[in-house]
Amino acid sequence: MLHVFGHQNPDTDAISAALVYAHLLRRQGLDAQAFRLGELNFETPFVLREVGVDMPPMLPALPAGADVALVDHNESAQSVPNLAELNVKYVVDHHKLGDLNTASPAYLRFEPVGCTGTLLLKLHHEAGLSVEPQEAKLMLSAILSDTLHFRSPTTTQEDRDAVEFLAPIAGVDDVESYALAMFAAKSDLGDTPADTLLKMDYKVFPFGDPAHPQQWGIGVIETTNPAYVLGRQGELLAAMDQAKAEDGLAGVLLSVVDILNETNQTFVLSATEEKVLKEAFGAETHAQLADLGSRISRKKQIVPALEKYFAPQA
Amino acid sequence: MLHVFGHQNPDTDAISAALVYAHLLRRQGLDAQAFRLGELNFETPFVLREVGVDMPPMLPALPAGADVALVDHNESAQSVPNLAELNVKYVVDHHKLGDLNTASPAYLRFEPVGCTGTLLLKLHHEAGLSVEPQEAKLMLSAILSDTLHFRSPTTTQEDRDAVEFLAPIAGVDDVESYALAMFAAKSDLGDTPADTLLKMDYKVFPFGDPAHPQQWGIGVIETTNPAYVLGRQGELLAAMDQAKAEDGLAGVLLSVVDILNETNQTFVLSATEEKVLKEAFGAETHAQLADLGSRISRKKQIVPALEKYFAPQA
Repeated sequence: MLHVFGHQNPDTDAISAALVYAHLLRRQGLDAQAFRLGELNFETPFVLREVGVDMPPMLPALPAGADVALVDHNESAQSVPNLAELNVKYVVDHHKLGDLNTASPAYLRFEPVGCTGTLLLKLHHEAGLSVEPQEAKLMLSAILSDTLHFRSPTTTQEDRDAVEFLAPIAGVDDVESYALAMFAAKSDLGDTPADTLLKMDYKVFPFGDPAHPQQWGIGVIETTNPAYVLGRQGELLAAMDQAKAEDGLAGVLLSVVDILNETNQTFVLSATEEKVLKEAFGAETHAQLADLGSRISRKKQIVPALEKYFAPQA
Repeated sequence: MLHVFGHQNPDTDAISAALVYAHLLRRQGLDAQAFRLGELNFETPFVLREVGVDMPPMLPALPAGADVALVDHNESAQSVPNLAELNVKYVVDHHKLGDLNTASPAYLRFEPVGCTGTLLLKLHHEAGLSVEPQEAKLMLSAILSDTLHFRSPTTTQEDRDAVEFLAPIAGVDDVESYALAMFAAKSDLGDTPADTLLKMDYKVFPFGDPAHPQQWGIGVIETTNPAYVLGRQGELLAAMDQAKAEDGLAGVLLSVVDILNETNQTFVLSATEEKVLKEAFGAETHAQLADLGSRISRKKQIVPALEKYFAPQA
């Protein structure tokens, strides 16, 4: 059986892409099944209810040599712990290529679009397969989620075209209202513990000398209600401090992204992070909070600037 | 400008793919140009004459940050020396994914087919572009070359279908005769110096612990006239010995592949190579020659067996 899964701390694209790609591969005759690598955020259950599908099961421990398909990620730090032992047969992703390698020639499909969903729609077209309503709504939701309804600088014309194509099949008449409902669901954080909030959309990145990289944890909370998250600054800083110590990280950042106003306020844990934010972004820190302006994309705006900042001098 | 190129020691697929992909990208509005990383083998000039196109120029030294498209390879050891400094925007390949990574999201297309040409034909179809006669003949030639006219175990049904589709466009009525003429051109080695013969289709592979790999040079001479190559054993062993010392390699292998009879006789340089060939393939060495039977594919039969043999014990 081919195990299909997205990254750790799955977001709507990671879950949607696993479901849609497994379904597509089954239609092409493969025994493929979708899985997840962690608990859902608050947006994805809303989407799955709207679509009327169950969340995929947690990926069980896989024996060495098991066949896998990765969606919406490729770096080992964001994947299953024993990825190096597994047989990566398929990858569909829209991130930069990291430390992935394959034991034999595989099917890899990477394009610089805003969402894996956009690429999966293309795969349907190329295979000459119609798009079914549930898959249409999963891809549509993922694109709206990943691009913050086209607000993110990662958005491409292909993402916009995909939403236009998918909306009628998905039965979504008012895309704007649907996106707002998704973002409201995501922002309804209730009494979620601070460490859960931190890790909800959180990835560890290696920076600097590839032989001896320093690891930074970077979390993002995309919300229509930033005041709520900012009000929990004390708890969240404590959770960041704990993650930094437990995981032996060089730094931890947590950005509070106001979806509707397209702003980023980032919690600053210590002098280390303050220095980096100042030097990499020119951001001043006040009361352990740095204003990163309109840099709302971790992938396109935060990580590339940090990679450049930490790059070994030639 | 986007620089499009295949691997070092280019074969017909590396050259053909660079020309065809650059042409395709130009038709899609990009300023793309084909290059080569080394001298041609004896088959490729025959193909270029048949097609009526010039060989691409040697790739000049590229400054850091230059945009490149890799075809028919992805591992840094087979590419331009300063690959890590370049901006890899496109990759089209049919090999396993090695140590490549990209600075930002890129367009990557890998499929486990027998030839890059097969994948490039698919890209034409997906882009809704017709295939022009010169490009058709370049792709057809590359597929016949890489699959040894479907004799190689790397051959897939897609490769066969591609040749069937391309032959009438390319104006090749008798594919069998055309392939034999290609192979005869390739086998007409004349008084080529032994070190040139060794390096004609030669790649360096890292084996064992990724942190401290041992490097093996593996050359293949595909020929319809193995007796000629076997008759130059002494010179070729001397060239192998020199390459081993100069490049600090752990081992060097040179396989003489009889295209028409589908057999592999491999020159054995020293006790090191003899032991590995014995233990990885069960091959006995006599008079510095090991019979590897019908293992005619370096990619599918030689390298995977060596990777398994050298794999660190769990």
